[in-house]
Amino acid sequence: MPSKRHGFTFDQLNIGDHYVCQARTVTEADTVNFAGLSGDYNPLHTDQTYGETTPFGGRIAHGMLVLAIATGQANQLGIFEGTTIALLQQTVKYVGAVKFGDTVHLEFKVVDKKESSKPDRGILTIETTVLNQDDKAVIEGQWVLMLKRDQA
Amino acid sequence: MPSKRHGFTFDQLNIGDHYVCQARTVTEADTVNFAGLSGDYNPLHTDQTYGETTPFGGRIAHGMLVLAIATGQANQLGIFEGTTIALLQQTVKYVGAVKFGDTVHLEFKVVDKKESSKPDRGILTIETTVLNQDDKAVIEGQWVLMLKRDQA
Repeated sequence: MPSKRHGFTFDQLNIGDHYVCQARTVTEADTVNFAGLSGDYNPLHTDQTYGETTPFGGRIAHGMLVLAIATGQANQLGIFEGTTIALLQQTVKYVGAVKFGDTVHLEFKVVDKKESSKPDRGILTIETTVLNQDDKAVIEGQWVLMLKRDQA
Repeated sequence: MPSKRHGFTFDQLNIGDHYVCQARTVTEADTVNFAGLSGDYNPLHTDQTYGETTPFGGRIAHGMLVLAIATGQANQLGIFEGTTIALLQQTVKYVGAVKFGDTVHLEFKVVDKKESSKPDRGILTIETTVLNQDDKAVIEGQWVLMLKRDQA
């Protein structure tokens, strides 16, 4: 028996819809795990001695780890569950460092909807911002998703 | 004693330079770990029963997992070690699915260099392609990095 769909279809989302996701604290353990999984052991993220020579004063989380956490936060809303066909594009600006212990959350707004030549799907663009505990943006950008449509 | 620098500075990289990174097989374990780390349990990646109802015929790796692996592959070249100040921007197009067992590698070319108002750093743009074992592109895009310059 196939899984049931719980998410929102292309037709159920509207330009201007705004979502605020649950926050999460980014930890040293997250960064260690992301280094292992990605293979990105750049000393910015994994060498405390080196980090202390940078303007950050220590190791910082990988920007892509924070972006990955943001995609998890979006997914945890439930609205993309079973209705997302694919993530098509991301435009990402890393505008601030995330240190261990910082708490980040994703906010996004639907800014564009395009019908597809195929009647069962549509293209949704969301404008995304990842904010830290001081409400300072750390990542900005747009994500483009393909979503299922309501069946005619 | 601070870590020694092994990477290439902004001045040591030139427009047109082309790199081919070591390949890596993307596995079910990678995808499980990425779901846990990101919190993205979208059924596309974690529900085999659901996956069998999609055109992919099963679960697929998160696009962002493949991108994370690509950043690891870039870093494993060693040329960014100790000279990268920050990853500033990424423009990413996910153009093909990656199934468990697919083997991907990153290729990139330096396409732009901009000096900064600060004499100790410069901005490098690379055009990136992640290819699978059939040499089919699965991710395309550009990454913008800030690198240290040679000291005057």
